[in-house]
Amino acid sequence: MGEINLLIPGPTPLPPRVLQAMGREMTNHRGPTFGRIMAEILDGLKDVFRTRNDIIPLVCSGTGGLEAAVVNFLSPGDRVLSVNNGYFCERFAEIAERFGARVDRVLAEWGRPVPLDAIAGRLRADAGRDYRAVFVTQSETSTGVHNDVKAIRSLLGDHPALLMVDAVSSLGAIPLETDAWGVDVAVTGSQKALMSPPGMAFISVSDRAWAVAERASTPRFYLDLQRGRVEARRQPPGTAFTTAVTVAYAVHEALRLIHEEGLDRVFERHRQMARMVRAGVRGMGLRTLTEDAWAVDTVTPALAPDGVDAVTVGTQARERYGVLFGRGIGKLEHTVIRIGHLGYTQSAMLLAGLETLGRTLNDLGARAATDAGLEAARQTLRAPAKR
Amino acid sequence: MGEINLLIPGPTPLPPRVLQAMGREMTNHRGPTFGRIMAEILDGLKDVFRTRNDIIPLVCSGTGGLEAAVVNFLSPGDRVLSVNNGYFCERFAEIAERFGARVDRVLAEWGRPVPLDAIAGRLRADAGRDYRAVFVTQSETSTGVHNDVKAIRSLLGDHPALLMVDAVSSLGAIPLETDAWGVDVAVTGSQKALMSPPGMAFISVSDRAWAVAERASTPRFYLDLQRGRVEARRQPPGTAFTTAVTVAYAVHEALRLIHEEGLDRVFERHRQMARMVRAGVRGMGLRTLTEDAWAVDTVTPALAPDGVDAVTVGTQARERYGVLFGRGIGKLEHTVIRIGHLGYTQSAMLLAGLETLGRTLNDLGARAATDAGLEAARQTLRAPAKR
Repeated sequence: MGEINLLIPGPTPLPPRVLQAMGREMTNHRGPTFGRIMAEILDGLKDVFRTRNDIIPLVCSGTGGLEAAVVNFLSPGDRVLSVNNGYFCERFAEIAERFGARVDRVLAEWGRPVPLDAIAGRLRADAGRDYRAVFVTQSETSTGVHNDVKAIRSLLGDHPALLMVDAVSSLGAIPLETDAWGVDVAVTGSQKALMSPPGMAFISVSDRAWAVAERASTPRFYLDLQRGRVEARRQPPGTAFTTAVTVAYAVHEALRLIHEEGLDRVFERHRQMARMVRAGVRGMGLRTLTEDAWAVDTVTPALAPDGVDAVTVGTQARERYGVLFGRGIGKLEHTVIRIGHLGYTQSAMLLAGLETLGRTLNDLGARAATDAGLEAARQTLRAPAKR
Repeated sequence: MGEINLLIPGPTPLPPRVLQAMGREMTNHRGPTFGRIMAEILDGLKDVFRTRNDIIPLVCSGTGGLEAAVVNFLSPGDRVLSVNNGYFCERFAEIAERFGARVDRVLAEWGRPVPLDAIAGRLRADAGRDYRAVFVTQSETSTGVHNDVKAIRSLLGDHPALLMVDAVSSLGAIPLETDAWGVDVAVTGSQKALMSPPGMAFISVSDRAWAVAERASTPRFYLDLQRGRVEARRQPPGTAFTTAVTVAYAVHEALRLIHEEGLDRVFERHRQMARMVRAGVRGMGLRTLTEDAWAVDTVTPALAPDGVDAVTVGTQARERYGVLFGRGIGKLEHTVIRIGHLGYTQSAMLLAGLETLGRTLNDLGARAATDAGLEAARQTLRAPAKR
């Protein structure tokens, strides 16, 4: 833990080795030294994406990555089905609409998954097979819901729509089997489970999606993935435009950390941290927005007790105790405190965060059973890991 | 100097204080601590841009910044006049065409400025005042030509076209008087004279340009500057999407360095380094692509001697001596060696680079008067500074 305890669901804390890697001197982004680093990044990402697809690196935030998915694989007027149960699902849909797509939303209350039969119904109703894409946000960070990519892919069957997954806050924290499940386009960012600073997005593109890109007529230049593919396939690989060299240094080192730990153990650690935080929150007498059956292992939205403004909790926790929680987003702003537990976030940081949450609530006159919460949280660390 | 001597015209070497600033721990890009940093960045940039306009930060390379200029201020079918004498001028034009603009190019041979009377002629011929924008690349890095923004602005008179300046490799190295000259849109990047890693672009937008943005119909989302303006005008300011926090840490510290040195002294230092490199190149018997009357103070393209492939010179300099020169771009690939001298690049690095250039040429059997070149270069450091 540094001077602050950063418990937002991204950007996430940087491991010391990642911080150190960024201290390397600047180099030529088109030279062979950096080319080797980029080659190792793309190989390492293929392991995490679980894919043999091309991975295209971009200099942008996760939102820029989502825009790349829209402008490279959709044309104005194309129909899209948006599996939509939160703020970031809606952002993906909004981007598509901005570029002229016609988006149907299959909705659910925030904090709940979209029923699979509702999705199946929309697909059945699409007799002409007009949908060109289905959008799924795997980890909906605003609500802590895990949207089931594999199940949604199964519903698609042989429907020709591309499955496009926002994996910005999920990749490297929970399993995404890009090839085995048949994900056509998956987007992630550097600043979540990849334990690096914000500034780069990475997109996995299937052969089916590349074929669609040939025909997609939305104009694009900076985010043109076909242009990126030319550079990514060179030996050594590069990027179409100047890349974010120090962010790449960070991602390179973070992927080594993931490789050393092993992807399965990384996922298990995320499950354990999630279990611990949920137990801690409930142990102190709070509820979580999201039921465990569909809770994602990256962030836990705790509901503020009646009469307590979640924004005030966040402000006080930061100002008095140096703990940074995520604010509730959109309509959840005043009711939800989001505790991020992805990437390098350690149990000690989370226990300190839980302690601060309880203390802050008590400061504000709400009764939180801080000690009981901490004990419940610690208990999960002693319990044998369950899958 | 580190293990390598980085003499490409960007990304440029990072000052130790900038490297150190990037070692700060990650924080909430939406929190007050980072907000104060962003406020100081935007204030510091206004000093360097010499403007009271809004400065909008984006997470992208310089090319992304140019695309933002296109998609926010132009509509499909709009006519653009491109002052076009190099690779990066052409890129700006190409982006506009990709998004549907009709671009007229007023050309010059690479290495020469576009004659002002040719530009004036095009503007006179535009009786209907159809041009919506004039594109100028202030420092054309492919050829080392300084395009005269002030003079071109004067030619425009009361023509309503927006003056859009690619200042990616010029801002902070040579004067750009955004307000005094009447530059509507100016784009720069973090990785050139701002002495930071690549990953962010900054755009200055005049009130006149904002009025145009209201009507511009090109679809945009990630690079939407109006959305960026909402965040940039908050107190403290932010960005529309997750910002590149560590790059921002770097820019913040680099702007302090510029402020401490004083902008005029920074420009004088760039003039001095440019004078030194040109003298060194010529002193060893080589020619520069560009005449001094219009040479920019950021990069010097040296012409390889007859019979010597510039690519080979670059490869050998890197592999044998650890000096990284810029390659010739496009049609200049095999004839030009580009020596970058912007940002934190020091005279010792440049003298070592000149020594390596001469040595490498001699290795390759060309006769270069290395010692005479170094003496001529050093001589400029002893001469009183001329404006």
